[in-house]
Order: sequence, then structure tokens, then C-alpha cells
Amino acid sequence: MIERIKQNSRMSMAVKAGGMVHVAGQVADDPKAPLEDQTRSVLAKIEALLEEAGTSKDRLVAVNVFLPNISDFDAMNAVYDAWIVPGAAPARACVEARLADPDLRVEMTAVALA
Amino acid sequence: MIERIKQNSRMSMAVKAGGMVHVAGQVADDPKAPLEDQTRSVLAKIEALLEEAGTSKDRLVAVNVFLPNISDFDAMNAVYDAWIVPGAAPARACVEARLADPDLRVEMTAVALA
Amino acid sequence: MIERIKQNSRMSMAVKAGGMVHVAGQVADDPKAPLEDQTRSVLAKIEALLEEAGTSKDRLVAVNVFLPNISDFDAMNAVYDAWIVPGAAPARACVEARLADPDLRVEMTAVALA
Repeated sequence: MIERIKQNSRMSMAVKAGGMVHVAGQVADDPKAPLEDQTRSVLAKIEALLEEAGTSKDRLVAVNVFLPNISDFDAMNAVYDAWIVPGAAPARACVEARLADPDLRVEMTAVALA
Repeated sequence: MIERIKQNSRMSMAVKAGGMVHVAGQVADDPKAPLEDQTRSVLAKIEALLEEAGTSKDRLVAVNVFLPNISDFDAMNAVYDAWIVPGAAPARACVEARLADPDLRVEMTAVALA
Repeated sequence: MIERIKQNSRMSMAVKAGGMVHVAGQVADDPKAPLEDQTRSVLAKIEALLEEAGTSKDRLVAVNVFLPNISDFDAMNAVYDAWIVPGAAPARACVEARLADPDLRVEMTAVALA
């Protein structure tokens, strides 16, 4: 059984299958917002999608972070670290990569246990 | 049980394990082909590998797209969107990243439910 | 049940959940070391984490490789290919991406069957 959440003709914002939930690349609604605000927006979207899929951020398994400017690493992490549930930190990778909208400063994907 | 498809000494083109199928990064055979043709080739390879693993593109869970030129985003999507089975869109992320062969214009990985 | 290995406030080095083990982005301890040494270090860390999670490299399902200089592709592969257990090659993707520390030459994530 596959459950697809917030689906359009290109992608689903989250897909529940095989006991896991895969969250699509999330970006901020306002690409002109500061990096910290964009990070908060991305994390809030991931959290909401996980809840819509019946799970929660304390069940995160893995997160991938893409930053167009890797120099934003520390500022992104300051917001990210505060969002993580103590004792429930996922595996993570963070690399530099330009995003579809050149103003966006951060994109993240996530996998959680359903 | 792990089933490995089209395996060489470096990688398997697809691996079936734990109820999921992971498809390795697929690229076009002709790196000089136009972006649209490369995209069609990549998607055809993913579809064939999913079928060889006993599943199909309507069971896709997640896709990652890597474009050496993010300006190809819209042209890639025109081909991609037409390939997606309506109602079966995977979670997806698309970022800019240079590939092993500098002529290649697109690479994709995929995860599907077995 | 989720088992988190070598966890800090940001990430776990590996997470076992849903019958799979996700290994976080691994990098060499010495970012000034040559590419070949960094590759060996990354692979050794992945192997140790898989074992700590109760699995092993012959159960690898997928690996992602990030190289800040894609021109290191062949040199990385020479070490990588020798490390792979014959007959147990994972799905893989390798793309260019700058890493958090500008001296680092390679980072890898991995997924294995538990």
C-alpha cells in the first residue's frame, strides 16, 4: 500500500510505503527570506508532512540538506540543531548544491519510520 | 534476501531488499544527446530496471534528479511530468550537480516499493 | 523500533529502522589527507558503522558519493572498487558537490539491509 500526500502531476510532498515515509525536497515559500527563516520554514513543512503521514519528527531516520552556499552551514545548523528532538537525531548529509530557484537558500529531504 | 540487478564490480543498477527497490544513478547512453532525449533515456532505463526487479513506475516512492545546469529544470520537467503515472507521483528532489561525464545533462536515482 | 548509533545533538552516524540501516555522510578525520586516504577512511567508517548496527558491507543496498572535484572520480573509484565485496555491489550515484569543510575531498552516505 502506497499513500501519497499533497500530490500533483510531478511529485508528492510525502510518500508512505513499506513502513517508511519519504518527504520530497522542501523549500521555503518565500525565496527572498533570510536563511534562518527559510530553514525554519523547511523544517516546519517537514514536520507537518510527517504528521500528515501519521508519524513525527522523533521518528526521523535520515535527512539530506542542500545549500546553494555552503558558507550558510553554521547558520542553517543553528536553526536545525534546535529543531531536533534530543535523542532522536537522524542520519544526515549536507552538501552544496544550487536549487531550482536561485534565491532559495536551503532545501531538505527526509525519511522517517512510519 | 538481497537481489542485485545488472551488477558489475562497482555497482548494481538496481538492488531489491527489505521490500524496496533502489535504482542506481541512471544516465543516457549518448552523453551528446539533447537534454530531452537524455531525460527520456534515463526514465526508460529506470522503468526497465523497475520491471526487471518485479515492480513498476506506478510504485515509485522517491526520485532524485541531478542537473549539471539547473537552467535545464523546465525542459527536464516537461519530459518527466509526461512520464509520471497520474496519481502515482513520487517524492522528488532536484538539485544542480556536475556529473562524472561533463557532457551528460541529467542523472536520476529512484526508490520504489517492491 | 529505532536504534541510533553515535548520536549527538545534530545527527546520528547511523540509524537502524524498518529493517534498514542508514549511514550519515561520512568524511575523513584528516581533511588534508590525499584523496585515496580520505576514501579509505570514509569506507572504513561506513564498514565500522554497519557492523556496530549489526550488519555488514556485503548487505549494502545503496551508496551516494559526493566529490567536490568530479575529476577525482577515477582515483576515488580505484579505492572504492577494491573495497566492494564481489557479488555484493550496491546501487550507487556519484555527483560533484562541495562539502562543509573545503579541504575534504569525498563524502559518502550508505543504506544497508539490517
